[in-house]
Amino acid sequence: MASKPSIPKGTRDFSPAEVAKRQYIIQTIKTNFEKFGFQPIETPSFENSETLMGKYGEEGDRLIFKILNSGDYLAKANAGHLEAKDSTKLTASISEKALRYDLTVPFARYVVQHQNEIEFPFKRYQIQPVWRADRPQKGRFREFFQCDADVVGSKSLWQEVELVQLYDAVFTDLGLAGATVKINNRKILSGIAEVIGASDKLIDFTVALDKLDKIGEDGVKKEMIEKGISEDAITKVQPLFNFTGTTTEKLAQLAQLLADSQEGMKGVEELRFICENVINLGLSTAELDLDVTLARGLNYYTGAIFEVSAPKGVAMGSIGGGGRYDDLTGIFGLKNMSGVGISFGLDRIYLVVEELNLFPQTVTVSTKALFINYGEKESFYAMNAIKQLRAAGIKVELYPDNAKVGKQFQHADKRFIPFAVIAAEDEMSQGKYALKNLATGEQNLLDLEELKAALK
Amino acid sequence: MASKPSIPKGTRDFSPAEVAKRQYIIQTIKTNFEKFGFQPIETPSFENSETLMGKYGEEGDRLIFKILNSGDYLAKANAGHLEAKDSTKLTASISEKALRYDLTVPFARYVVQHQNEIEFPFKRYQIQPVWRADRPQKGRFREFFQCDADVVGSKSLWQEVELVQLYDAVFTDLGLAGATVKINNRKILSGIAEVIGASDKLIDFTVALDKLDKIGEDGVKKEMIEKGISEDAITKVQPLFNFTGTTTEKLAQLAQLLADSQEGMKGVEELRFICENVINLGLSTAELDLDVTLARGLNYYTGAIFEVSAPKGVAMGSIGGGGRYDDLTGIFGLKNMSGVGISFGLDRIYLVVEELNLFPQTVTVSTKALFINYGEKESFYAMNAIKQLRAAGIKVELYPDNAKVGKQFQHADKRFIPFAVIAAEDEMSQGKYALKNLATGEQNLLDLEELKAALK
Repeated sequence: MASKPSIPKGTRDFSPAEVAKRQYIIQTIKTNFEKFGFQPIETPSFENSETLMGKYGEEGDRLIFKILNSGDYLAKANAGHLEAKDSTKLTASISEKALRYDLTVPFARYVVQHQNEIEFPFKRYQIQPVWRADRPQKGRFREFFQCDADVVGSKSLWQEVELVQLYDAVFTDLGLAGATVKINNRKILSGIAEVIGASDKLIDFTVALDKLDKIGEDGVKKEMIEKGISEDAITKVQPLFNFTGTTTEKLAQLAQLLADSQEGMKGVEELRFICENVINLGLSTAELDLDVTLARGLNYYTGAIFEVSAPKGVAMGSIGGGGRYDDLTGIFGLKNMSGVGISFGLDRIYLVVEELNLFPQTVTVSTKALFINYGEKESFYAMNAIKQLRAAGIKVELYPDNAKVGKQFQHADKRFIPFAVIAAEDEMSQGKYALKNLATGEQNLLDLEELKAALK
Repeated sequence: MASKPSIPKGTRDFSPAEVAKRQYIIQTIKTNFEKFGFQPIETPSFENSETLMGKYGEEGDRLIFKILNSGDYLAKANAGHLEAKDSTKLTASISEKALRYDLTVPFARYVVQHQNEIEFPFKRYQIQPVWRADRPQKGRFREFFQCDADVVGSKSLWQEVELVQLYDAVFTDLGLAGATVKINNRKILSGIAEVIGASDKLIDFTVALDKLDKIGEDGVKKEMIEKGISEDAITKVQPLFNFTGTTTEKLAQLAQLLADSQEGMKGVEELRFICENVINLGLSTAELDLDVTLARGLNYYTGAIFEVSAPKGVAMGSIGGGGRYDDLTGIFGLKNMSGVGISFGLDRIYLVVEELNLFPQTVTVSTKALFINYGEKESFYAMNAIKQLRAAGIKVELYPDNAKVGKQFQHADKRFIPFAVIAAEDEMSQGKYALKNLATGEQNLLDLEELKAALK
């Protein structure tokens, strides 16, 4: 292989600094997941194809990475599909496994498969990569991590309250003050659909309404009419064009608007419970925003819907989302298992933390001090100290070769190692070590205990 | 889907307790990797097929999981191979990506691809899953984690010294006192092959010699002769049949035996440097064992060879291994990049730690206390406390539903939660919380500060 090797498009290598930063975010999320009582599970990277296929719609099926059967896979290939060169149909007979596409379906499969071992309500979190054969573009990858927390087996709305608090806790810990947790409810949307008398126009309606800030009330109404929503319907939902005030005031407006919709009123009640408790318990730095235009996962969510946007001033799509679903495990034959969950968008959160310069400097500092190599005897002397420093939990290294001292200092510099330790004949004869601060140039002659204290 | 869902053979779901235990081992390895100056990288789960194919021999090529191209893959399939139903040959035209088979080849690819950004010597560690289409059996899986640490860009033998210390540090931290780090050197083996005059018989020779304890000197010699090793050759290596004593004594015997082999003597010198420094610097709990029958990775390693066996009394294959290779990156066009590395066998280490009952009890304790749910008002009171306890880093939960109290206590019990907090009307009226130790039944009425202190 003469040309420089490369990696598949849409995938990434992560350098030490990048791994350290990603780990910092993941660790912050994990710590909070556990503080809130979520427990980790892990599922295999690939599942049986029948577990995944048909769960994400036709487009999803296409985007699932299929694994070719091992051995003589053509021997069992469907002759007719092979003859017809029908790739889509042939797949089932030459591939029986596929890479997971998200963490939700594997979680549903896990719950059903292990239902007798699981103690419900089951609060699980899962932080693992997923794969999608999507066209790669800026910020969209073919391999990326999902960070999910879900509770199944309880309809209690306290879970929704806690999930908002969980977002608040994570983003506060990351220093991302001012993240907005937008909340809506599927039942509110159903109620609105009832009021406008056209549930098939619901998405057109929310998409148009979401543009209120940009194109004004007249613009929005024009778009709605173009999409086939009647003027009469628009008049009925007039309050939504001036949907402001406190959350309590918004809830009052919704209650009035949806008074005739049983489903809608159920949504208002749920939202009221969640919002009031979140507000009364208090958030640290996040803001809660009741947003009736929020309409993600319509085919999926049955209650609360969440989406988090980055602090104002950072141009970035949603950095998290989730909601309540009433029939996650039904696809695998286990009925009546209500669940609610949220997800953190690791890649986007990374970009936001980077843009706002919020990664602690210590995150990427690995080795604390480099011992300069002056030869075999000196190295042995150094290694004696290194052994004891490491035992005390301090990250130190010996430069492995007796190279020119200048080159060794350069190595420390390039690796952002803050200290060098000089232990040549002179220092050895005194049983000491010269600790040099590579930023200031300051140098001190120390014994081992003092060295340990200085580097701790 | 009516039948209970399942996962592909050779893969595993990990329950919360299993994830916690695995994480404990991984974290111990990681902490020590970093203490020794290794930095993490991560590479994609799948690589371009050309990166992997041909790197692991024919058998390896067969065991690599191939990913089917997306879309109409048959359109670009090789018509001749399709016609001939030649699965092996067809693969190249319908699959251009494959799941990584180990972490070594991706690391070599990484080093070559990023050589201009990397500061050498480069000490990297990598802890990620790999996939092999091997026939699953006890302790052998199709998806498993590798934990590798390698240094490239230096021939210094101090690295080998440090890698032995690294094994010692990890196994000591895991409480696995008495792990044996077996060490040999490829050059010693070459020297022995020279002496017996048959390098193609080297494996037969070491395999037979390794049985000395079991079948005795006569048995071993009989097997060697059966394998075609001459009596004359066996006489020449007679000292290896009584290869005992201290490491220094063993090295002296080897020096005598291999006096005429330049390569062999180079091996003796390397081993002497490594062993003497390891011994003089001292190991905490591991033992170093110079073992000339150790012959792993013969096609691959060029210097030191390592293998770790579990403490005596535990029947388990090697729990780690590694060695020095002089041309890792040559396959990708970058010559003269010597490297040395070791690997930890996560699954086997897990089994050993489990068998010896060495997992700290705290590893699987997640939630510290469950607040009993007595209704909405009481839950709000509980949530106020929970918020502050979590802010103090304490893992606490509210039972989400106002279920029967007995059921809630049972939930705590089944989840091994050690404490329950009772805050019903009576406690609320006093502004207190009753903390109940679920093991002893002891119960104390505390205010929030006292509760925090008790659960900390």
